[in-house]
Amino acid sequence: MSLVVVGTVAFDGVETPFAKRDKITGGAAYYTSWAASFFTDTIRLVSIVGGDYPQEEIDAMKERGIDTSGLEIKEDGLTFFWAGKYLDNMNERETLVTDLNVLDDFNPVLPDHYKDSQYIMLGNLTPDIQMQVIDQLTTDPKLIALDTMNFWMDIAMDRLKEVIAKVDLLTINDEEARQLSGEYSLVKAAEVIHKMGPKYLVIKKGEHGALLFHENKIFFAPAVPLANVADPTGAGDSFAGGMMGYLAKTDDLSFENMKRAIIFGSAMASFCVEDFSIGKIKQLSDEDVTVRATIFKDLVDFNL
Amino acid sequence: MSLVVVGTVAFDGVETPFAKRDKITGGAAYYTSWAASFFTDTIRLVSIVGGDYPQEEIDAMKERGIDTSGLEIKEDGLTFFWAGKYLDNMNERETLVTDLNVLDDFNPVLPDHYKDSQYIMLGNLTPDIQMQVIDQLTTDPKLIALDTMNFWMDIAMDRLKEVIAKVDLLTINDEEARQLSGEYSLVKAAEVIHKMGPKYLVIKKGEHGALLFHENKIFFAPAVPLANVADPTGAGDSFAGGMMGYLAKTDDLSFENMKRAIIFGSAMASFCVEDFSIGKIKQLSDEDVTVRATIFKDLVDFNL
Repeated sequence: MSLVVVGTVAFDGVETPFAKRDKITGGAAYYTSWAASFFTDTIRLVSIVGGDYPQEEIDAMKERGIDTSGLEIKEDGLTFFWAGKYLDNMNERETLVTDLNVLDDFNPVLPDHYKDSQYIMLGNLTPDIQMQVIDQLTTDPKLIALDTMNFWMDIAMDRLKEVIAKVDLLTINDEEARQLSGEYSLVKAAEVIHKMGPKYLVIKKGEHGALLFHENKIFFAPAVPLANVADPTGAGDSFAGGMMGYLAKTDDLSFENMKRAIIFGSAMASFCVEDFSIGKIKQLSDEDVTVRATIFKDLVDFNL
Repeated sequence: MSLVVVGTVAFDGVETPFAKRDKITGGAAYYTSWAASFFTDTIRLVSIVGGDYPQEEIDAMKERGIDTSGLEIKEDGLTFFWAGKYLDNMNERETLVTDLNVLDDFNPVLPDHYKDSQYIMLGNLTPDIQMQVIDQLTTDPKLIALDTMNFWMDIAMDRLKEVIAKVDLLTINDEEARQLSGEYSLVKAAEVIHKMGPKYLVIKKGEHGALLFHENKIFFAPAVPLANVADPTGAGDSFAGGMMGYLAKTDDLSFENMKRAIIFGSAMASFCVEDFSIGKIKQLSDEDVTVRATIFKDLVDFNL
């Protein structure tokens, strides 16, 4: 099935306790589309870049089967730039630079052939832009997923809640789930958030795994402990890509299949962090992905 | 098989964002012994309390099958008192008071009938005291487990490493594993720590679960998301109790059985946090424990 991916395509500057990169390719929609491309070949990108964005990156996406007709290129503008620094535990980071550049004027217009897509991934952007995308859809999709962050809860909570009311699946981290719901317990937070609209809630906990809440059911996907973590940037977006790519491929929203989608999302996130940008993801075979998913299975396997 | 539990028996003062208790019963050996008592009835306590410690608590332990002949009662002293405050996320805490009291003179002497015990749990204490217990054992136990913390790494690392060299299983949290090994990756940290002595490493991550490392194998036990967390105090010690109690009961150190031990440890920890002190643990039936373990199984169950 068709998957629309809306979000940033960017340059990133990344500093970890072990290494530093001044300018590498990144952005939520970039990571998500690449991760999803291991599962489905009908990926429709919606984003914006400046004239400084390398044509070969766009060509590589096209070759990978990613439809870039929804990628606006603003020739006289500069691509969105974000820079951040990871603290000692690599699970926390501080933002050093946020140059919105062309993102400041982002006014996404869906190409006509995107408008009846069945799976929609709305990456972390202003709630207004996310709503604008939803409003352009001409048919009711099978699943709209939305990623957001505490920043929008701080400055645009009401508008964010309007968007959340229209989506089926929400991905946020544990602290954001607490902020959005006003509940400390994630079980209670999930109950409150389900009432806001989303039938599915995915709580991302970085190196501590991810939780899926649906009706009264809970599934926990671990994170695989890795010998080498190069850069956590894009892990959440790669997770979204693996998850949504798998759902678009299988077109099955049963809880059992959602679990598998979460595992494939976690697998893509685990590859993502093993190199900067999509360095590792680019080199994967389909078999690598299958083998990694099996490692998740073994990691939590026990008999009582 | 026989299980020796060495550690504190204490009074605690606990403050969470939601409630406060000025003086409740606690201590590592207290939580560990109670949790272990659901699995085995040959539990041998080694600890010290003051004349202010309630006789009915000691009687309740005896009734539960806990041998208290190794519990020294220093009539003219006061019981160890700890007070702490949990921060908003309940996964971090600050210590407000540490009154060692009788613990300052703790010089554990094992009763003769303890000395050939097969399973030994050394709770978090000075490395000197932990070593003193090991030195009194007359036979080589099946398993010595040791719990410690960053405080001893900061002030007595060399001595701590001497003790660690003598134990089979080490339980610490993720930051402590990083401090002890000098490695960021927990996979690499485990390799370093295995070389220090312990064949088994358990990394406790509180509300994020626990990891078991053995040879080249890894097992992850999730934490069950709970609707109500009253007080995280004693969770790690209840975990140790469930784990060691299960091992003493089954007397099987295969990796498959160690996994089950970790799950039963996690189950006891999950009960522990649902009330202050051992309020919830005291009321459990064996069936409650079995049912909770099944919830862990369901939580991570998926098929590729």
